[in-house]
Amino acid sequence: MNEVSTRRKRGGGRAGHATRRGTAAIEQLPWILPVNIDRPTEPLTEEGVARIHDTAMVILEELGIEFLNPEAVRILGEAGCRVSGENVRMDREMVMEYVRKAPSSFTMTPRNPERQITMGSNHILFGNVSSPPSYWDLEIGRKVSGTREMCQNLLKLTQYFNCIHFAGGYPVEPVDLHASIRHLDVLYDKLTLTDKVPHAYSLGKERVEDVMEMVRIAAQLSDAEFEASPRMYTNINSTSPLKHDYPMLDGWMRCAARNQGCIVTPFTLAGAMAPVTMAGAVAQSLAEGLSAIVLAQIIRPGAPCAIGTFTSNVDMKSGAPAFGTPEYMRATQMTGQMARYYGLPMRSSGVCAANVPDGQAMWETEHSLWAAIQSGTNMVYHAAGWLEGGLIASPEKFVMDCEVLQQLIRYMDPAICDVSDDGLGLEAIREVGSSGHFFGTKHTQERYTTAFYQPFLSDWKNYEAWEAAGSIWTAERAHHVYKAILEDFEAPPMEESVREELAAFVERRKSEGGAPTDF
Amino acid sequence: MNEVSTRRKRGGGRAGHATRRGTAAIEQLPWILPVNIDRPTEPLTEEGVARIHDTAMVILEELGIEFLNPEAVRILGEAGCRVSGENVRMDREMVMEYVRKAPSSFTMTPRNPERQITMGSNHILFGNVSSPPSYWDLEIGRKVSGTREMCQNLLKLTQYFNCIHFAGGYPVEPVDLHASIRHLDVLYDKLTLTDKVPHAYSLGKERVEDVMEMVRIAAQLSDAEFEASPRMYTNINSTSPLKHDYPMLDGWMRCAARNQGCIVTPFTLAGAMAPVTMAGAVAQSLAEGLSAIVLAQIIRPGAPCAIGTFTSNVDMKSGAPAFGTPEYMRATQMTGQMARYYGLPMRSSGVCAANVPDGQAMWETEHSLWAAIQSGTNMVYHAAGWLEGGLIASPEKFVMDCEVLQQLIRYMDPAICDVSDDGLGLEAIREVGSSGHFFGTKHTQERYTTAFYQPFLSDWKNYEAWEAAGSIWTAERAHHVYKAILEDFEAPPMEESVREELAAFVERRKSEGGAPTDF
Repeated sequence: MNEVSTRRKRGGGRAGHATRRGTAAIEQLPWILPVNIDRPTEPLTEEGVARIHDTAMVILEELGIEFLNPEAVRILGEAGCRVSGENVRMDREMVMEYVRKAPSSFTMTPRNPERQITMGSNHILFGNVSSPPSYWDLEIGRKVSGTREMCQNLLKLTQYFNCIHFAGGYPVEPVDLHASIRHLDVLYDKLTLTDKVPHAYSLGKERVEDVMEMVRIAAQLSDAEFEASPRMYTNINSTSPLKHDYPMLDGWMRCAARNQGCIVTPFTLAGAMAPVTMAGAVAQSLAEGLSAIVLAQIIRPGAPCAIGTFTSNVDMKSGAPAFGTPEYMRATQMTGQMARYYGLPMRSSGVCAANVPDGQAMWETEHSLWAAIQSGTNMVYHAAGWLEGGLIASPEKFVMDCEVLQQLIRYMDPAICDVSDDGLGLEAIREVGSSGHFFGTKHTQERYTTAFYQPFLSDWKNYEAWEAAGSIWTAERAHHVYKAILEDFEAPPMEESVREELAAFVERRKSEGGAPTDF
Repeated sequence: MNEVSTRRKRGGGRAGHATRRGTAAIEQLPWILPVNIDRPTEPLTEEGVARIHDTAMVILEELGIEFLNPEAVRILGEAGCRVSGENVRMDREMVMEYVRKAPSSFTMTPRNPERQITMGSNHILFGNVSSPPSYWDLEIGRKVSGTREMCQNLLKLTQYFNCIHFAGGYPVEPVDLHASIRHLDVLYDKLTLTDKVPHAYSLGKERVEDVMEMVRIAAQLSDAEFEASPRMYTNINSTSPLKHDYPMLDGWMRCAARNQGCIVTPFTLAGAMAPVTMAGAVAQSLAEGLSAIVLAQIIRPGAPCAIGTFTSNVDMKSGAPAFGTPEYMRATQMTGQMARYYGLPMRSSGVCAANVPDGQAMWETEHSLWAAIQSGTNMVYHAAGWLEGGLIASPEKFVMDCEVLQQLIRYMDPAICDVSDDGLGLEAIREVGSSGHFFGTKHTQERYTTAFYQPFLSDWKNYEAWEAAGSIWTAERAHHVYKAILEDFEAPPMEESVREELAAFVERRKSEGGAPTDF
């Protein structure tokens, strides 16, 4: 195990500094905000874009969306929507008027300002897996319920890897923590173990309000400073077809009101919660998403919103959801075209249906990540650690995904295609002629340490050397890297007084009973 | 193991018919020639294309290429190249004049005309791994030398899978066959076990001539019919930097003269046989490739040629070649831009450095396959079965790759993005409203058996069902599929008299001593 055996102890310094190249467990890429330099893949013609838009608008105008939240219904009604009980219909002129108020790009700034991220502007950013109830690792060897310790360990990976730009929801649900106080403990862990942009679940007002307060405390901001620009984000899923539920809308409205990131991601499985045809599933997803963005823009014009896609297909033999399929890829690309049409930042995901971190897991994940690149996605949820359609979090998969993410980040580096005289290297070709070797040339020697991407997990040894090193397959190598990272992990710096203030907040809110669990 | 346990015995019929959906071991996609509908990814500006072209031309004009074959040197000299010993320099006007004679698209027709393939015209076609000296499978569990039986088994996979469009070189080197007669036995196996477009190694005149004769016999063609249009192809690699060796040129010239497919693929590892900078490595590769195409076009104007790329980078720590890297992807995309500039069909590969069919194998292979799609590659060599940088052939990897290839073929199906009224499904959305489910709708029921890609290897069961089925990881499932295919395999039909004529040819050539092995 080269990656582990060659690790060296650090000479000193503090962990977690945004610009360092990584702690000692592995050599990793530095923290950067990658810019997607590829032209998007666009399967839709202009007419196709217009037809999907028209279908989404007809859904909003004629069928309407159910908003299972009286306050949301009231706000939408007052703004001119046609309300009938919980059903809200809105004309396309109004939809487009409000959607245009949403910024095409915005920043989010966590407690460490060096970890600020930009949503939009051709950036593609990656976050950890969120919300699996279960956990799997090679040591345990089976699927088990998530615990706080597992969650903490995955948060450490989230912090450790520079290719992870934002912290998602709980990287595994710590079901050993009571649901009423779970958000308090996990947010304490997240805000002390990471310094990246955090996420809040929209599951009732207490959770969102508690998270916003803890994020404010962690960054030592006044209320006005907190609201001046986005510091965190929430993500809501509609209850497809054509419905938004109460707690999601509640959190959504609170985040919009306070100028925090609002991402809406309908989960439209074609053939189940949406039409079996992908263009229809995309149109329905857009209608559901845009309706929430209209609500946010009514509440706070200019509120930072993004449109997400989670359109995939089911296995029509079993009804099981499938991910990273050809249909998933095209749906993501189509959604990308539509997001550009609406001028909104876009979210998609790194996903698979595989149950263990094997070949299938990686080809499905690769398909979803390429769909993200091809679609112009700005924010890739679940980009590290996801298995079993999101039901399992795995540290081995997390580490394997980070190897892939690093390669994609390097892929975006325009330096690879340098066609300056240096990049063309004609003088080196002249020097070597037809019988030499390039390794010894000055042109090579000046560049060889930085010319190529250097993996931390891929094993490029030949078979015999790989065999001599123990014949270790990728998942097991990833397990060793995971353990090495945990061993070396140092939390990002935080003033002790801030930590105490956070802990005191958690204690107070626990003593008040946390959040209700009856929604 | 769902794929194996559910296989059914065929009721009858002949195997190998090009349009059947597959034999019974698995349900696979039908034989089609996929059209790549994606706009290529183009990292070079127009100026970048011009600069790489100019560098390639300066190499050809000022440095020249060594042609280690007196006949080739003579032909090039008579056509106006500047010859100095084995060094041949050619002006860009002459290069472009001859390159323009090469067709931008051509067909190749094997003994079963239903297996005709088109090189060019936005087709992307896949072939099996070629030329590994070693073999690995899960049952053996270690790297071993290739044998004729292993080679035959991999040829059976080549024939079986409809996503494999052409037969490459030996899918594993049968080192139990003496090198002097190996080509005779393997070509006999290839021509009887498959009916797809075959390949000939350019390793001395006897091998190429024997293969052309066997291909002619297998299809029962006259010499004139054989030459009337391409029936097979060869692939040569330059001896980078800037050199073509004797036997490769010999085979190349014989294939060009007889109007068979001529593919030239320099193996330019950046930092070793080419500049450490990718644009320079691409420019050198193009110069080497174009020089061979000029030779072919002098010999037979209009000869069917394609330009290949095998530009990758080494691991600068160990010097080992790496594949499917970010640099490999961009080099392939740049070569695609240049191939379009020259109006030539293009070849690239499905490659990885991994030693076993695990996660790394699949992410590296995925990167190379996406580079093929993004570059507008027409012919993907090594698309199934490749491990260890091409030193190992593996049937498990073959089967896993075919699952991915099928998904890519489905990805190219424009039907996924249908935006007709049927594709938008507004009536189904209207019918289901906000509280129903789409499965029961007429819109879904009419489409659910064909709406989505159905994998033969991906396991979409949930964890518990997967565990109950034996917790089988992908590579092991692939092994079972491989065994099931072998068990069910039936060779494509061939008249007994043709088989006898082929066998008699092999016997006669063996009695004559086969081909020399001293080159």
